[in-house]
Amino acid sequence: MSALSVDSTARELVAAVRGRAISARELLDLHLARIAERNPELNAIVSLDEERARAGAAAADEALASGEAVGPLHGLPFAFKDTHAVGGWPTTYGSPLFVDHVPEADELLVERVRRAGVVVVGKTNVPEFAAGSHTFNTVFGLTRNPVDPSRSAGGSSGGAACALASGMVPLADGSDMGGSLRNPASFCGVVGLRPSLGRVPEWPLYNQWESTSVGGPMARNVGDLALLLSVMAGPDPRTPQALRDPAAAFAEPLAGSLVGLRVALSTDLGGAFEVDHEVAAVVEGSGAAFTAGGSSVSAAHPDLVEADDTFRTLRAWHLQAKFGRLLAEHPGSFKQSLADNIRLGETLSGADVARAYTQRTALSEQMRHFFTSYDVLVLPTSQVPPFPADQEYPSAINGRPMATYLDWMRASYLITVTGCPAISVPAGLTADGLPVGIQIVAPHGGERRLLEVAAAFEAATGQPV
Amino acid sequence: MSALSVDSTARELVAAVRGRAISARELLDLHLARIAERNPELNAIVSLDEERARAGAAAADEALASGEAVGPLHGLPFAFKDTHAVGGWPTTYGSPLFVDHVPEADELLVERVRRAGVVVVGKTNVPEFAAGSHTFNTVFGLTRNPVDPSRSAGGSSGGAACALASGMVPLADGSDMGGSLRNPASFCGVVGLRPSLGRVPEWPLYNQWESTSVGGPMARNVGDLALLLSVMAGPDPRTPQALRDPAAAFAEPLAGSLVGLRVALSTDLGGAFEVDHEVAAVVEGSGAAFTAGGSSVSAAHPDLVEADDTFRTLRAWHLQAKFGRLLAEHPGSFKQSLADNIRLGETLSGADVARAYTQRTALSEQMRHFFTSYDVLVLPTSQVPPFPADQEYPSAINGRPMATYLDWMRASYLITVTGCPAISVPAGLTADGLPVGIQIVAPHGGERRLLEVAAAFEAATGQPV
Repeated sequence: MSALSVDSTARELVAAVRGRAISARELLDLHLARIAERNPELNAIVSLDEERARAGAAAADEALASGEAVGPLHGLPFAFKDTHAVGGWPTTYGSPLFVDHVPEADELLVERVRRAGVVVVGKTNVPEFAAGSHTFNTVFGLTRNPVDPSRSAGGSSGGAACALASGMVPLADGSDMGGSLRNPASFCGVVGLRPSLGRVPEWPLYNQWESTSVGGPMARNVGDLALLLSVMAGPDPRTPQALRDPAAAFAEPLAGSLVGLRVALSTDLGGAFEVDHEVAAVVEGSGAAFTAGGSSVSAAHPDLVEADDTFRTLRAWHLQAKFGRLLAEHPGSFKQSLADNIRLGETLSGADVARAYTQRTALSEQMRHFFTSYDVLVLPTSQVPPFPADQEYPSAINGRPMATYLDWMRASYLITVTGCPAISVPAGLTADGLPVGIQIVAPHGGERRLLEVAAAFEAATGQPV
Repeated sequence: MSALSVDSTARELVAAVRGRAISARELLDLHLARIAERNPELNAIVSLDEERARAGAAAADEALASGEAVGPLHGLPFAFKDTHAVGGWPTTYGSPLFVDHVPEADELLVERVRRAGVVVVGKTNVPEFAAGSHTFNTVFGLTRNPVDPSRSAGGSSGGAACALASGMVPLADGSDMGGSLRNPASFCGVVGLRPSLGRVPEWPLYNQWESTSVGGPMARNVGDLALLLSVMAGPDPRTPQALRDPAAAFAEPLAGSLVGLRVALSTDLGGAFEVDHEVAAVVEGSGAAFTAGGSSVSAAHPDLVEADDTFRTLRAWHLQAKFGRLLAEHPGSFKQSLADNIRLGETLSGADVARAYTQRTALSEQMRHFFTSYDVLVLPTSQVPPFPADQEYPSAINGRPMATYLDWMRASYLITVTGCPAISVPAGLTADGLPVGIQIVAPHGGERRLLEVAAAFEAATGQPV
């Protein structure tokens, strides 16, 4: 084990706490120092509460000293995404309407991560109600990219990715409808997994059958991410629609290799989206890494063109159902792009929604067939490198204007529709040194294999393990 | 084992075939003789093909003779519900539009039951597209109640229930949106289980997230039904949304008792529906049987009033999505009540559908809480005894007129909305000797316990085991 620091892996840090090599208090102090150093500029962590965090660390040390059984994340500093309800902590959703909101109870994902022993230090910043892939809101302002603070950290789990990349926290949670666990990971040079639909149970839900948004883990490396997934996943009686496989297997060491892997690689899913030339070059370069590792790489892709309509319909339907009443009551308290999308949802017919589900079912079938020929699909996570932080979204790619603020997120949201797990792992840099991730996609339910492949890719490309 | 006959249990019959006490050919002959005797009047089995059935029985005998491994239903005569696609067999859905339809492939439920070794003899009759709880259509006509042929056999799995009760088949499959596995079981004096949402995976589906209709088993007794469930249930890679628990446990002997069981009993869910006085008396009488068996019986019920709107919305949405195009192309080929419901679906907004899912989620939560105080809920399966077969549906109950043709199905469809498993078991007779079933409901995922309770009730009330 190398010298412990905020750049150590989460697995090293929990082992060190458990082995009394460092106390939870000392570990917290290291992270608070880093937060003090970087957060004023980056604005990744909001609602920071050092006093409560110190009390939490002290309690963690006492539990360990008293011989209590402790969880797999015991003593790790943690900041939950600000759209996740943490009992007793401010939870604003990035909305001025919830600026003073303090939930009484944890939501399920938070409950699990807290029970695993983390020490809560605050929340991570989000776009308003997690809508959009650039993290800014009127409550806390803008989160900046730690690699280049003039750039966006991505979103919606942008605070989480930035905090991870800058060493403010060792692990982070997020959620992903159109790419919110993947896009910020790509922008900040960390790892983010959108799990299979149903893998990470969510409760409470306004609609138990809601099928686009999922919770999931982020980390600086695949092994740490797998540890967090093992805490988040698994059955709960409150979520009858979720997958029931036990989650412990995710925590076992990842011993995958790239040898013999059948990789389908595509820079743009056959022209389904515009992709920045530098991003495309990184994706092509990752193909070379897979080949060098012994994989067989083919230029191939599923036909996800129809998924565009499916996603936009389901997204608008979801936003209207969740926020329609609030928008009607407080029309001035929503950002324009979100308000427009909620209102789009009001125009949908029941038949539109049924058509989206029918399309989605067909796409899910298509992926099942596709994955009989390939083990994984590799494509860009984001169509662009981190863009200037003062823009709401990239208005053009390769000089081609984008018609709507969703157009630059297709690479991630087309994958959302398939229900398959997708991980973003760092794969290279632009000429300006900005991080670029690739997205590796596996069959529904195939997280374990996906993590093994991602870890092997990470090892092969010299990223930290 | 008593002398083998068409009234033997399915378990006795498969054991006899496997033990060479009877050949599959002989077993088929017994059933074909019963079909010849009763079916001309009852019209439960349609598309009967004796020649193919004999070839199937011969093949089953040869497989056994050659020492091949055989399935748990090896050699049992079987007739699939005519809304279930059976490769190479007529599948009309009870619609004149499909009168010559012969699917190429089995749907998943059929594939599983065939792989378990059944000998297909034909199909069981259904209402047009399984819509409605009285079995008649313009393709094959009316199915009559085997106890009193002037009465309805119920529906939509009416052919199945009638064929079982009259000894034409030892087991049967069905499906249930608003009560189609329960209502005909109640009317014909057999057992029908609506499984938990996701328990019996379905494929293909136009919408993988469709959450009202489920496939399931019927039998003459609970133990036989459990055997069939063990064949139908369990994970399949084509149905990622279904429950993944293995199904073998359902086939283990049911050793439940009524002692200490916390039973909530209600004749009408607090006035949520009108119930015929004779039916109510049978339900009350079942309470006495539970009490005598050592259960603690309370007058209690969940509040399912809102489930009425939820069900009607989801049903219309589903029917429009599934049949809207067909109705537009062939408006004269649908029965009026079905056409009206499909057109009702066309008027739904996306927000209506979202509201239904939100209500359904809340109802599912309410049931989870309810089942912390009670182990099972007991209520009527059907609000009426078997009604005259020449009516489309009962126009009044206890003299009170019913506003729509769905009003008399509330007892079953309100339970549909909860997603919980519900079994109908015979519980008594009217003064005219017509069968009346009770519905026993358990928490989502709780089929094993539900089957144990139902078997113990069956034993306590002197029904065949």
